Amino acid sequence: MADEKKFVEQITPRDTDFTQWYTDVVIKSNLIAYSNIKGFMVIKPAGYAIWENIQKLLDARFKATGVQNVSMPILIPESLMKKEGDLVNGFAPEVAWVTAGGTEPLTERLCVRPTSETVFSDFYAQDVHSYRDLPRLYNQWCSVVRWEKETRPFLRSREFLWQEGHTIHATAEEAEERTQQMLQVYADFLSEDLAVPTIKGQKTEKEKFAGAAATYTVEALMHDGRALQSGTSHYFADNFSKAYGIQFTDRDNKMKFVHQTSWGMSTRVIGAMIMVHSDDSGLVIPPRVAPTEVVIIPIQQRREGVLEKAREIAQMLKDRRVKLDDTDRSPGFKFSEQEMNGVPLRIEIGPKDLEAGKAVLVRRDTREKTECAIEEIPQTVDRLLVRIQDDMLARAREHLAKHTYEAHSKEEFEEIFSEKSDRHGFVKAMWCGDRACEDRIKEQLGVTSRCIPFEQEELSGTCVCCGKPAKKMVCWGRAY
Amino acid sequence: MADEKKFVEQITPRDTDFTQWYTDVVIKSNLIAYSNIKGFMVIKPAGYAIWENIQKLLDARFKATGVQNVSMPILIPESLMKKEGDLVNGFAPEVAWVTAGGTEPLTERLCVRPTSETVFSDFYAQDVHSYRDLPRLYNQWCSVVRWEKETRPFLRSREFLWQEGHTIHATAEEAEERTQQMLQVYADFLSEDLAVPTIKGQKTEKEKFAGAAATYTVEALMHDGRALQSGTSHYFADNFSKAYGIQFTDRDNKMKFVHQTSWGMSTRVIGAMIMVHSDDSGLVIPPRVAPTEVVIIPIQQRREGVLEKAREIAQMLKDRRVKLDDTDRSPGFKFSEQEMNGVPLRIEIGPKDLEAGKAVLVRRDTREKTECAIEEIPQTVDRLLVRIQDDMLARAREHLAKHTYEAHSKEEFEEIFSEKSDRHGFVKAMWCGDRACEDRIKEQLGVTSRCIPFEQEELSGTCVCCGKPAKKMVCWGRAY
Repeated sequence: MADEKKFVEQITPRDTDFTQWYTDVVIKSNLIAYSNIKGFMVIKPAGYAIWENIQKLLDARFKATGVQNVSMPILIPESLMKKEGDLVNGFAPEVAWVTAGGTEPLTERLCVRPTSETVFSDFYAQDVHSYRDLPRLYNQWCSVVRWEKETRPFLRSREFLWQEGHTIHATAEEAEERTQQMLQVYADFLSEDLAVPTIKGQKTEKEKFAGAAATYTVEALMHDGRALQSGTSHYFADNFSKAYGIQFTDRDNKMKFVHQTSWGMSTRVIGAMIMVHSDDSGLVIPPRVAPTEVVIIPIQQRREGVLEKAREIAQMLKDRRVKLDDTDRSPGFKFSEQEMNGVPLRIEIGPKDLEAGKAVLVRRDTREKTECAIEEIPQTVDRLLVRIQDDMLARAREHLAKHTYEAHSKEEFEEIFSEKSDRHGFVKAMWCGDRACEDRIKEQLGVTSRCIPFEQEELSGTCVCCGKPAKKMVCWGRAY
Repeated sequence: MADEKKFVEQITPRDTDFTQWYTDVVIKSNLIAYSNIKGFMVIKPAGYAIWENIQKLLDARFKATGVQNVSMPILIPESLMKKEGDLVNGFAPEVAWVTAGGTEPLTERLCVRPTSETVFSDFYAQDVHSYRDLPRLYNQWCSVVRWEKETRPFLRSREFLWQEGHTIHATAEEAEERTQQMLQVYADFLSEDLAVPTIKGQKTEKEKFAGAAATYTVEALMHDGRALQSGTSHYFADNFSKAYGIQFTDRDNKMKFVHQTSWGMSTRVIGAMIMVHSDDSGLVIPPRVAPTEVVIIPIQQRREGVLEKAREIAQMLKDRRVKLDDTDRSPGFKFSEQEMNGVPLRIEIGPKDLEAGKAVLVRRDTREKTECAIEEIPQTVDRLLVRIQDDMLARAREHLAKHTYEAHSKEEFEEIFSEKSDRHGFVKAMWCGDRACEDRIKEQLGVTSRCIPFEQEELSGTCVCCGKPAKKMVCWGRAY
């Protein structure tokens, strides 16, 4: 018992201090380590294996829509960055500047890419000539650097891993369609693979990406009721193509500017996954992205036949990501470790089970036990893993629904977001469309507009801030 | 016919100017584009798809030996770099320095990683305590920056993509064994997947990696007789662990320093693959890494049934990387394009074939044609792709054997490497072991020691440079 306790005692209970709980889980489950430079993290094998699964699933979804992967330079000349005014103003305060190569100072400083709209635009300007060259649907998997002040593992770091898609199109309609399509890819990936439901919508002018004509977002709700922006898709119209001269000869023989999109998702979604699903015993990982789906733990493994049978079961499950824990630590220790690491399913097999020709399967998410005949283990595992994935999504959906409130008046809005409130989550409320109201709400309540949901409702006729006629329903929240 | 010619005319013949031929092939087959910054390249979809296949195959080979992937910070503080003297002296002249983050100058400058021994060592020093924590077998896939003066696509660039493995072990023996094991993984990958045979051996003291106790290498021979170092594996003994304090408590309860290795392979091997296999019509890609294995080209595709049958064949091959080219360009153009892009096999299907229930399969490497009944296409494709892969390796082996010479005396050595020589390749010759001879040979002939081959022969008793008693047989060559 001492062993089991050890693990759990390392974690601050989630309801006592959510922030500390998150840090404890991330560190104790060996996902990351802090490095010597503030805001730069080491992603350890357990963390990177989740990212590899995410990459594989997301990359397949991209490729199914015709996207191709490329690799663009990591450094960007300052003059290239400056061609599009909004972007450089948005990113200048947070880029890392390279000023020397070897022993020589550079004649022009170069920034480590914070995002690559400028580099893709510069490339497309050289590479595209005719409507036959369009569309271009390129993506890259890489790391980017942004000199953030406050940093937290996965959620906000000075370097993070991500993918950035950059597409160009002959028409505005086609580019808009692609922007929406990729947002839907993100929403599907988040719900189907990470079991994280989201609210889809458009960012306000204040919150949109620097240089974009429109930014769309998928917003997830964490267990503590805070919002996490989990993926964004931007429509640039011809803003960049005019600044970088990306022109093509169209079917009508006229020179035209292309219409552009970009869309990105990062290691941040690992943070979302943790803050939606995990608990006081450690990680709970959805089966589809779990590095290990099933761990087999023999009980009294020195007793005759136990280890052999455990190996047999491992062999039966060889098409799964399965592990047999035959180390000499106690079963209790192994159970706790499996729970800490978030392995979705464990199989216990001991001398009594052996005699009865059975094994016990225990779910990580609910701790529910299922007895099953040994020869039926593969089908039972298949069924349970699907069930776990589905139940995790259902619970997260329920949490999202339960913590999405409506405010019909200024009073109600302020009450929900007040310090003494016990309602923590998204608040849907009407908005006049003025930035001044957004600014005031942020200043007074620390609340930001998360998005203008695609699914609009008319909750009242007036803005919850100024009382003027309302234009849109906005989803508000406190965000990570 | 005009169409076909166009493609070929864009390429300088290989025997006229090998260097220009290489550049032409790389550009015209759309593998890369030059970017706005010298030495930084854009890897386009055709090039990146090859890299993705290389990553997949190599990563699986790593994981089969127990290696785990991680992600380490991209920036390294100068003080951390300086802890190991040899390494910093080796890399200081060629790193890019970050001196500002956002609008603030940094208190300590950071370099963009040229390689990550320092970062891994720093991490291991925090993370490892006991013999139970060993070995650690970590790898990362990333890009690195080295401020090279001369740059060429894939072969030498200021940024390149690679993997770097960094392992630590309780004993010197185990670390040495891992160093050799990973060299063998590289040699197997190069021959079995890229069809590039290599000579395995140890680097001399002069040529070894900065900070290493021993460097092992796989050296490939290009079509023009020049050598290309294609992968290296380093044994560090406890050089880094002493500098960075990576200690552990061993079974005997004593504190000891770990023994360390690192090993890397980069996008450079794409250059090797091209310079070994490709020809005057463009790329020749080994099937195992070809982005498209088979392209189906319909002849007179508007004739009834042709396109339908072509689609049927594509469906029959759906487990392969197959493409159907149903664009409205001429078959001749499509053939040339397939040859330029190095697709290993094409299937031609026209009205006459349709009538006869047959199709024609044409190999890219030999242009050999095979007629085959339509229902036998899948098995024929399987067989031909294996044959192509095998034949490509066999031809490369023959080329390597034919262009590996022996020099038994100073005169012979100098004659082979003289300007008027028609022998271009590796030269095996005896060496006294003195760096002075290596230096002299490099200065006088522009030739470097590629490696001390594992398979030693005693060609004579004396050094081909100074005439003193010989210690080792060295493989010499002019290198990229």
